[in-house]
Amino acid sequence: MTQKFSEPRTIGIVGGLGPFAGVDLVRKIIRWTKASRDQEHLPLMLYSFPGWIPDRSGFLLDRSLPNPGEAIGEIMARLAQSGAEVIGMPCNTAHSPLILGPALERLRASGPEVEFVSIIESAVAHVNKLCPQGGRIGLMGTLGTMRTRLYQDALEKAGHQPVTLDDAGCALIQQAISDQNFGVKACSDPVTPKARQLLLDAARRLIEEKQVSAVLLGCTEIPVAITEAVLWDTPVVDVTTVLAQELIRASCPERLRERLEA
Amino acid sequence: MTQKFSEPRTIGIVGGLGPFAGVDLVRKIIRWTKASRDQEHLPLMLYSFPGWIPDRSGFLLDRSLPNPGEAIGEIMARLAQSGAEVIGMPCNTAHSPLILGPALERLRASGPEVEFVSIIESAVAHVNKLCPQGGRIGLMGTLGTMRTRLYQDALEKAGHQPVTLDDAGCALIQQAISDQNFGVKACSDPVTPKARQLLLDAARRLIEEKQVSAVLLGCTEIPVAITEAVLWDTPVVDVTTVLAQELIRASCPERLRERLEA
Repeated sequence: MTQKFSEPRTIGIVGGLGPFAGVDLVRKIIRWTKASRDQEHLPLMLYSFPGWIPDRSGFLLDRSLPNPGEAIGEIMARLAQSGAEVIGMPCNTAHSPLILGPALERLRASGPEVEFVSIIESAVAHVNKLCPQGGRIGLMGTLGTMRTRLYQDALEKAGHQPVTLDDAGCALIQQAISDQNFGVKACSDPVTPKARQLLLDAARRLIEEKQVSAVLLGCTEIPVAITEAVLWDTPVVDVTTVLAQELIRASCPERLRERLEA
Repeated sequence: MTQKFSEPRTIGIVGGLGPFAGVDLVRKIIRWTKASRDQEHLPLMLYSFPGWIPDRSGFLLDRSLPNPGEAIGEIMARLAQSGAEVIGMPCNTAHSPLILGPALERLRASGPEVEFVSIIESAVAHVNKLCPQGGRIGLMGTLGTMRTRLYQDALEKAGHQPVTLDDAGCALIQQAISDQNFGVKACSDPVTPKARQLLLDAARRLIEEKQVSAVLLGCTEIPVAITEAVLWDTPVVDVTTVLAQELIRASCPERLRERLEA
């Protein structure tokens, strides 16, 4: 007997923040979809309008700059009008309530009923399964994500202990992400050895000095450089993969692979 | 003095045929765009609706099956209505006039003026630069693309000599692309060693037995498996990269990189 599948809901992706993180999410949706021919893959739309969206970390650190939430909400509304029923956004910083709030308000005002799948909630649910008794969770992300305590608050609420590096360590992570000469945003394909090394050093410090139970890559540029699922015997949570899995579940749960074939 | 850039035109991509070829094209557009921060990347939309589009090779080999051109035209029209000004489609087989004809007709009827960038014309223009005196060009692609002489006719018209393998060799290429257990469409990320080996064997036969001057990967699934720019001292033309470059040129020519940094 062949398995019955429900009609998939169309996935809409707010890309462009950065552009390569959008590609990485689509790629991971395809990778985690149970399908043996083209026609079995899920319907999805990627809108990548990077020029419309001001810098997210910049706004969170200086609120006099324009709020990127306006443009993000406009893109979400266009996705919904074009038929998206489930929306995801591969950018952690943009999930800050200061940015996401106005964006979702614009989306809701546009009319169609759409489910927004939060990368933060998806990641915390995943950490809950990984550490059901609560754990020390090492955080890597942009300065904007760290300073607005996006993950810290959500993890504490769920009974975990978020652990970050000192200011100098966080600044090096930001540099690995956004340095205009060697950062992942400027050079993503392939990533520069320097960016990867800075990110690996940060992960190692969290694991060896801070003794964390897991490392959460809380910026969608980081898993472009760190593709390992385990580092120094410690699980690494790639939030782009977690978001991809939750978007598949929201579109058509029967199509979610339980594991990748070897 | 900073370089002046014109306002980019929005790129629309008909994805889903196969889904991973759509991702590969977006990735190559990002890779070949001159940009040092998110905001400098080009505006683009990817519509991946694989479930709407019947098999392209299947239709070309048996015309009593439904024509995928109808659904492709509908997707192009939706891209145009959503603001796409330049459209590309990373699937060679779907460029057969029998499929592309009705698709472009549907697009033109939908209203907005849109430029369609042909993967076949882009590839032939690239081959002309590579072999200005004309050359023996080895072709790899689906049975549908080969039997409808999509590349053969275009290359001959441009003064080249298209070279294909015998029927058994072409059948092995088709198998590497679409076998439901090990083909690139079923397993693209990563590709199976078996699919890659079948494709490398075909390229080697074209180069060693047929003495071609270049090998043209005339199916967007093939460069997912063969990423080399040169094989056995012979240039390999990745038509997905060529299409990415032509789409950047059509959107904002100043943003096209001349070469990739080492």
